Amino acid sequence: MTHQTVGHPVLPGLPDDPRAHAAEPTSSCPVEITLAVLHGRWTTLVIREFLKGDHTFTELSRALPALSDKVLSDRLAHLTETGVLDRRRRSGWPPRVHYRLTPQGRRLGPVLQALWDWGAQQQPPPPSQTP
Amino acid sequence: MTHQTVGHPVLPGLPDDPRAHAAEPTSSCPVEITLAVLHGRWTTLVIREFLKGDHTFTELSRALPALSDKVLSDRLAHLTETGVLDRRRRSGWPPRVHYRLTPQGRRLGPVLQALWDWGAQQQPPPPSQTP
Repeated sequence: MTHQTVGHPVLPGLPDDPRAHAAEPTSSCPVEITLAVLHGRWTTLVIREFLKGDHTFTELSRALPALSDKVLSDRLAHLTETGVLDRRRRSGWPPRVHYRLTPQGRRLGPVLQALWDWGAQQQPPPPSQTP
Repeated sequence: MTHQTVGHPVLPGLPDDPRAHAAEPTSSCPVEITLAVLHGRWTTLVIREFLKGDHTFTELSRALPALSDKVLSDRLAHLTETGVLDRRRRSGWPPRVHYRLTPQGRRLGPVLQALWDWGAQQQPPPPSQTP
């Protein structure tokens, strides 16, 4: 399945949205907001794991064994703060904290797919010609 | 117009592509390839200007007046190296170097749109509750 791009506007954003015409980078630009959420090594892999389902810290740590606990904590905190993940304490014993994607977090699926599709088509650049 | 996401696979990538199951970040991951191309302050704004048409260095400098010549040079070199821009010397006098998007560069339009769409929907996170 490919992305539906036929009839897609050439320029991102809405013509009447002043952010689409910003003359310099601003943190209120929607593109910058999304890139800031995705920023950081491991972040997109953590989101990918959550697109498969809810996880506890331990489950996620097992799924991505090369990811240190510190970086995993940082990424979970970042994604919770930015509204991508929801942190819940489940009743029962032992008490367990589960993380899951918010509805907004789930909408990162198509964004990651668009990033994937472009990167998958990318050809390695021709070797630079030395004079 | 909104993105066509109905029936979109939940997980980015193809199920039989090993890169979709990478257990750690790799530079060969298509998502990482795209994020590396978009990386850097001003990069997405420079791409936006090229989605409007070809530009010389001077034209681009006028469109983004707060962008320094050094950073603009860096961004043009980065986008040319990564196959997003094509650099051409036009005949005539004075000789002028034009930059324009390659077909692959043009396909960044829908990627920026997906990033825009997500960021535009993003609600500011609730204020953190201090105990």
